[in-house]
Amino acid sequence: MQVHHVRIYYEDTDFSGSVYHANYLRYMERGREHLIGCDELRRLWDEDGVGFVVYKAELTYKEPARFGDALEVRTTAERTSDWRAVFRQDVWRAGGSQPLVEGRIELVTVDKAGKLVRLPEGVRTAIDAQVASRTG
Amino acid sequence: MQVHHVRIYYEDTDFSGSVYHANYLRYMERGREHLIGCDELRRLWDEDGVGFVVYKAELTYKEPARFGDALEVRTTAERTSDWRAVFRQDVWRAGGSQPLVEGRIELVTVDKAGKLVRLPEGVRTAIDAQVASRTG
Amino acid sequence: MQVHHVRIYYEDTDFSGSVYHANYLRYMERGREHLIGCDELRRLWDEDGVGFVVYKAELTYKEPARFGDALEVRTTAERTSDWRAVFRQDVWRAGGSQPLVEGRIELVTVDKAGKLVRLPEGVRTAIDAQVASRTG
Amino acid sequence: MQVHHVRIYYEDTDFSGSVYHANYLRYMERGREHLIGCDELRRLWDEDGVGFVVYKAELTYKEPARFGDALEVRTTAERTSDWRAVFRQDVWRAGGSQPLVEGRIELVTVDKAGKLVRLPEGVRTAIDAQVASRTG
Repeated sequence: MQVHHVRIYYEDTDFSGSVYHANYLRYMERGREHLIGCDELRRLWDEDGVGFVVYKAELTYKEPARFGDALEVRTTAERTSDWRAVFRQDVWRAGGSQPLVEGRIELVTVDKAGKLVRLPEGVRTAIDAQVASRTG
Repeated sequence: MQVHHVRIYYEDTDFSGSVYHANYLRYMERGREHLIGCDELRRLWDEDGVGFVVYKAELTYKEPARFGDALEVRTTAERTSDWRAVFRQDVWRAGGSQPLVEGRIELVTVDKAGKLVRLPEGVRTAIDAQVASRTG
Repeated sequence: MQVHHVRIYYEDTDFSGSVYHANYLRYMERGREHLIGCDELRRLWDEDGVGFVVYKAELTYKEPARFGDALEVRTTAERTSDWRAVFRQDVWRAGGSQPLVEGRIELVTVDKAGKLVRLPEGVRTAIDAQVASRTG
Repeated sequence: MQVHHVRIYYEDTDFSGSVYHANYLRYMERGREHLIGCDELRRLWDEDGVGFVVYKAELTYKEPARFGDALEVRTTAERTSDWRAVFRQDVWRAGGSQPLVEGRIELVTVDKAGKLVRLPEGVRTAIDAQVASRTG
C-alpha cells in the first residue's frame, strides 16, 4: 500500500462547507502518480509518447472532508492483464477509523494518437513492487 | 431527458490534449442543477437549509473530448426511494453517434448538520416531471 | 464590447460561500475565447501551431458572487502592438449596478516551442472588429 | 520568507502542455495558508467567524511550468495597515535561476456577513514573525 498525503485548502471546498465531490478523483490521481513515480511518468510521455487514460471510475462517498483536513490517499494496485491496471484508492482522514471515500479506478495506457498500448515496463515494475511490499 | 450544453475551454483540458477525467463529474453536476433548477437549489439551501450530496458515482470513459468541443450532457433521473435519486448522465459530442462518457450518479439530500433528509418536494416534482415528459 | 454569460455552480464556490477568487480568471478566459472564436482558436492550434499565453493579469475584487448567480463577463480588447493584446474584462451580476471584479489581462501568442509570434491575422481581425463595433 | 512546495500533476496542466495560468493563484493561496497556519485558519473561521478575502491580485508570467515539475512558492508578507496584508509570492522551479511567475496579493479579513474586520491577532503574529525571521 502506498500513502499519499493531501491537505484540504480553500480551493478544495464548495459552499456546502465540504470538499467538492469531483476533487477526490484529483487526489486519487496524485496518489497514482506518486506510486508510479512522477519522473517516470514524465519520461514515458516525453520519450516514449505514452500516457494514462482512466477507463472506469467508481466512487462511494461515506463522510465529507472539510477545510484544513489532513487526508491520506491509500492506494493498492494490480495488473488485471498486460493492458489494464486497477487501483483501489481509499481516502482517509489522518487517524480516522473508516475511509471517507472509497474508489476503484481502471486505467489503460495509450500512445499520442490515442491507440491502446501494453502497460510499459516501468509501470508494471512499480505496480508489482507495490504488490510485493504489501504481501511480503 | 434533459440536455445541458458544455463548451470545452483551455481550463478543461490537460497536457495529454484531452479533457481531464475528473471534469466530467462537474459537467454532470451542472446538468443536474439545471434539471432541478438553479433558483430552486439556491432557495432550498438559503431557506430550507437543504443541500445535495453525491453518494455514489460510476463513470465509464469511451472516447476523449478535446479543446473546442461542444458537448451535451443528457440526463434522465428517477427516485429510487423517498431518500435517494439516481441520475443517468451520458456526455455526447454534439452530433456524435455514441456517448463519450457514461455516468450513473446517486444523490441524497442532507440538512446543514449533514443529517439525511427526505428528498424535498421541489426536487421530487422536477424529477417526476422529467420522467413524465420522457415517457409521455 | 462582448458579453459572455456564466452561471455559478457548486464547483465554483468555496466554503466561505462565495466564488473562489482564482475562478474569475477562468471566466475571463472563456470570454476571450468567445470573442476570438472557439473554432478559430482550435484551428490556430491544430493547423498553425499557435497558442495564447497570459503575460500579465491584474484583478480587483469588489464584491463576491454566490451560488446560483448569473454573471456577465464584459470584454473589450485592443492591440497594443503587433505582438500583444490587452483585454479589459469586468464581471457583473446580471442587472447589477457595478462590477463585482475588474480585470486587465495581457496576452501574447507563441508557437508550439513557446517562441513569441506576431498576433495571427484571425485574432487581429476579431479584436479590431470588436473595437469597431464598440466605437462605431 | 516562507517556502511551500508544489508538485505539478495532470490536473494542473492544459492542452498547451503548460500549467493553466489561473492555477498559480491556487498555489499562492496554499503558500499563504501554510504561512498563517492551516489549523489557525480553521479555528478563525469555526470559532471567530473570520475569513480571508483577496482584494487585489497582480501576476506576471515569465516562463511556463510543466507536468512533473517541482515548484516552490516563496512568500513574504507585510501588514500595510491594521486592515490589510500584502503578500509577495514568487513561484520558482526548484533549482531555477529566476521566478516563473511573480505575484502580489492584497488580502483583507471579513466576518461571516462579509463585513471588513481588523486582521486577527493570530494573523498579525504570523506575518510579523515571518518579517522578523527574514530581516533578523
